[in-house]
Amino acid sequence: MTEGALADRFALYDLYAGYGALIDAGEFDAWLDLFADTCAYQIVPRENYERGLPAALVFCDRRAVLEDRIRALREANKYNIHSDRHLIGLPRIFGQEEDATLVEAPFAVYQTDQEGETRLFAAGLYRDRIVADAGRFKFRDKLVLLDSFAVPSLLATPL
Amino acid sequence: MTEGALADRFALYDLYAGYGALIDAGEFDAWLDLFADTCAYQIVPRENYERGLPAALVFCDRRAVLEDRIRALREANKYNIHSDRHLIGLPRIFGQEEDATLVEAPFAVYQTDQEGETRLFAAGLYRDRIVADAGRFKFRDKLVLLDSFAVPSLLATPL
Amino acid sequence: MTEGALADRFALYDLYAGYGALIDAGEFDAWLDLFADTCAYQIVPRENYERGLPAALVFCDRRAVLEDRIRALREANKYNIHSDRHLIGLPRIFGQEEDATLVEAPFAVYQTDQEGETRLFAAGLYRDRIVADAGRFKFRDKLVLLDSFAVPSLLATPL
Repeated sequence: MTEGALADRFALYDLYAGYGALIDAGEFDAWLDLFADTCAYQIVPRENYERGLPAALVFCDRRAVLEDRIRALREANKYNIHSDRHLIGLPRIFGQEEDATLVEAPFAVYQTDQEGETRLFAAGLYRDRIVADAGRFKFRDKLVLLDSFAVPSLLATPL
Repeated sequence: MTEGALADRFALYDLYAGYGALIDAGEFDAWLDLFADTCAYQIVPRENYERGLPAALVFCDRRAVLEDRIRALREANKYNIHSDRHLIGLPRIFGQEEDATLVEAPFAVYQTDQEGETRLFAAGLYRDRIVADAGRFKFRDKLVLLDSFAVPSLLATPL
Repeated sequence: MTEGALADRFALYDLYAGYGALIDAGEFDAWLDLFADTCAYQIVPRENYERGLPAALVFCDRRAVLEDRIRALREANKYNIHSDRHLIGLPRIFGQEEDATLVEAPFAVYQTDQEGETRLFAAGLYRDRIVADAGRFKFRDKLVLLDSFAVPSLLATPL
């Protein structure tokens, strides 16, 4: 591995660390900036995905749709009654396409309610296409495979 | 640290990321390939370990036994009613032997049942001997120290 | 990034991995050694912090106070009825001061009781000032932002 590749690996780790941190801090503009201009974001129950069923819980097939979705969440979050905490495991490269790197990482999200009680909200796996965009790594396609589908108030924040 | 050592560190991280990912994906052949030809795998309640009690929940003292165990799990998992998700913390080198590196990493495993409810299944600490095997890092001895010993259906998958 | 900077990054990761591991192993002298001679440690509910309220749950404004606190915990832990397990996400550098690096990392702590049942105890975010001290990274200021404030027996161990 060259020094460049080593530095890239840290940049990849930072992308995932930032992804979770920015959601949890409610910094959604900075979070959107982790996505490439051409991008997609979807949340699919793991079971549907494995059976090849198309049904997504959230399906943003381009950036404008994702931005709209985030705008709606922000409006809703004025009445926000919980906070999020993402724990994301070590990202793992599982493939290479011509212009994209395939990366997966397991995650768990904890939510804390107004009484200060923290509960596991969801667990799952990110399976993403990462591209270099002006010298930075960004998400081109983010697929959130959701283990948990019995999640109430699912869309209060991105996963 | 030399560049080689830096690259090795990422290879070590990848070993742990792969360990969890392959169990969660049910790819047990690839998972077995993370173990050296001569290897051991055991699951011991943390309390027993700290008191020096020998009682292991799972004790595979050589590769053939581990392969048998995995074969049995696969058979059982045809009727599998849950999915797993491993979250593994940053691996930490805590010692060096002549031909092996001692590494530990904390973990949590979440299980999701058929109703789509996700629960914490177990937490604990891996304490492992890692060896270089044909240019790759592999587990020679994997010790799963289990905090939780009130786990139902413990042996449905490896931890 | 230079090779030195790359090695530094692993040293930073090791600092966080060690932080959690040493608490969980009850090795509090080694844990204290992760703090600089001049240091502060506090636990603040996230909500208080965001509203600018000063109320900390734990406030050690210098090393001697932190050492006292740990001594008291050790005494209490002779009658310890639980074990801890920290899962800490990838550390993320979010700022640089003249002589300190600002780093944050999400965490979850699981506790296991004497019946062997493991539960989520707390989740939150570390927001720290890291300094180089005799060639090693150490915590100068550690701020534990606690999502969960409905935690019983909070002070049984550090977070």
